[in-house]
Amino acid sequence: MCQLLGMNCATPTDITFSFTGFAARGGLTDRHADGFGIAFYERRGARCFIDSAPSSDSPIADLIKRYPIKSRNVIAHIRKATAGVVELENCHPFMRERWGRHWLFAHNGDLLDFDPPLRGDHLPIGQTDSERAFCYLLERLNGRFGLREPDNDALFEAVAEVTAELTVFGIFNFLLSNGRCLIAHGSTRLYHLTRQWPFTQAHLVDADVSVNFADVTTPDDCVSVIATLPLTDNEQWQAFATGELIQFVEGRVHARRIVPIPEAVQQRNRANMSVL
Amino acid sequence: MCQLLGMNCATPTDITFSFTGFAARGGLTDRHADGFGIAFYERRGARCFIDSAPSSDSPIADLIKRYPIKSRNVIAHIRKATAGVVELENCHPFMRERWGRHWLFAHNGDLLDFDPPLRGDHLPIGQTDSERAFCYLLERLNGRFGLREPDNDALFEAVAEVTAELTVFGIFNFLLSNGRCLIAHGSTRLYHLTRQWPFTQAHLVDADVSVNFADVTTPDDCVSVIATLPLTDNEQWQAFATGELIQFVEGRVHARRIVPIPEAVQQRNRANMSVL
Repeated sequence: MCQLLGMNCATPTDITFSFTGFAARGGLTDRHADGFGIAFYERRGARCFIDSAPSSDSPIADLIKRYPIKSRNVIAHIRKATAGVVELENCHPFMRERWGRHWLFAHNGDLLDFDPPLRGDHLPIGQTDSERAFCYLLERLNGRFGLREPDNDALFEAVAEVTAELTVFGIFNFLLSNGRCLIAHGSTRLYHLTRQWPFTQAHLVDADVSVNFADVTTPDDCVSVIATLPLTDNEQWQAFATGELIQFVEGRVHARRIVPIPEAVQQRNRANMSVL
Repeated sequence: MCQLLGMNCATPTDITFSFTGFAARGGLTDRHADGFGIAFYERRGARCFIDSAPSSDSPIADLIKRYPIKSRNVIAHIRKATAGVVELENCHPFMRERWGRHWLFAHNGDLLDFDPPLRGDHLPIGQTDSERAFCYLLERLNGRFGLREPDNDALFEAVAEVTAELTVFGIFNFLLSNGRCLIAHGSTRLYHLTRQWPFTQAHLVDADVSVNFADVTTPDDCVSVIATLPLTDNEQWQAFATGELIQFVEGRVHARRIVPIPEAVQQRNRANMSVL
């Protein structure tokens, strides 16, 4: 299984603190050592750093910890391979362009026997069920919106609909962004918190590192962080309800809803989580 | 104006030597200091490192010089902004997916008044004429090949045809790759060389660095390097003829042809080169 980290902010913010704890789980404090990836939006641009080396000792992860890239939307992923070989083409996040924007997607889970016919607008490059799900999702958005780019609300509706379709195939925790909003789905396990004024101190779970956000922020800052497991041990992380889909905009929860997961699928997911 | 660097190899090869000289031109030995990018194919995967900082002092360029990524196709670009602001979304190479492969493109030149209607399969994210040309090229390939991925020969034919269309808009030196071949077009200025057994020593123009390729290669290695200006001062670089399009496969020239450029365009290109 894998772990996810996402950040959505009101103002460009660097993620070095959270990523330091997260990257330790890629081989040091946890066993997600089959590659990692992190992608940052900067204005309309995006850059995606991926490596098939463990994030705990990759020179690229080391660069990210030292080079504070300020971004309003970040998606990161550390991988424990369950489907697909340990190669670069299977590292999340996956990136595609639609409506003249970068779209980024990372997934934690397994979709069993998910192999829908794809029209060809977007095709997987690697072998993962995750990239296939992303291509399918984009194809469905294309089908629904054609050449008109959806606004945040229309996008959330559409993603909720496709999520309901895909969630029956298995564990489907994911992060999706187009640089304007970040949509997160908790199918089995995902947490979030929002940091805003008055800011306080935070201490990492995975490394003895603290930061006093009051020292490095302004009252305008507002940051939501989403992670598979809480990254800090002295803040109030909220668990996603089973099937909860949340859209973050400008650092805050903008929309949320439960996408129901059939009870049989929930049972199978629980069984699969315990063996992964 | 900008500079291009490409590499196509028979076996995965690292580009640290060439990139060290090339990166110096981004602010140190030359003035191409408005960002840079370098992309590597690894198996079906690709990773693209871009930065709006000059390549001569970017921490990301520094990582690339120290971290030998082995690849069979590499495209790099250093930018002197002439169209579009100095932002990440305007950094080359540009990347898109088609036929389940990454496609990469970098351009040196200026296409004047090039603003064709685009169908929407691939749209520019930034503001450059270069990314617009790339999206147009991919759209034309889609139109020609539909869902059938072209082989190397069919691809070369199609790219030659689109190049003939675009070359009338201005200076159009470019590098294009799908990870299987690298296609280079010399509209005004581009050089190439092929290194193969018996390998010899090479010395950079832009830094006092030498490498004896005989020490680090096997007889199976074969590497073609393409650059706006020769990177070494003791090897035989060949200039592209005006309008020459060359396809490199497995480290060697696989196909070549002159795409004629109207005399009036050549004259305008020469005038534009002298002011850029």
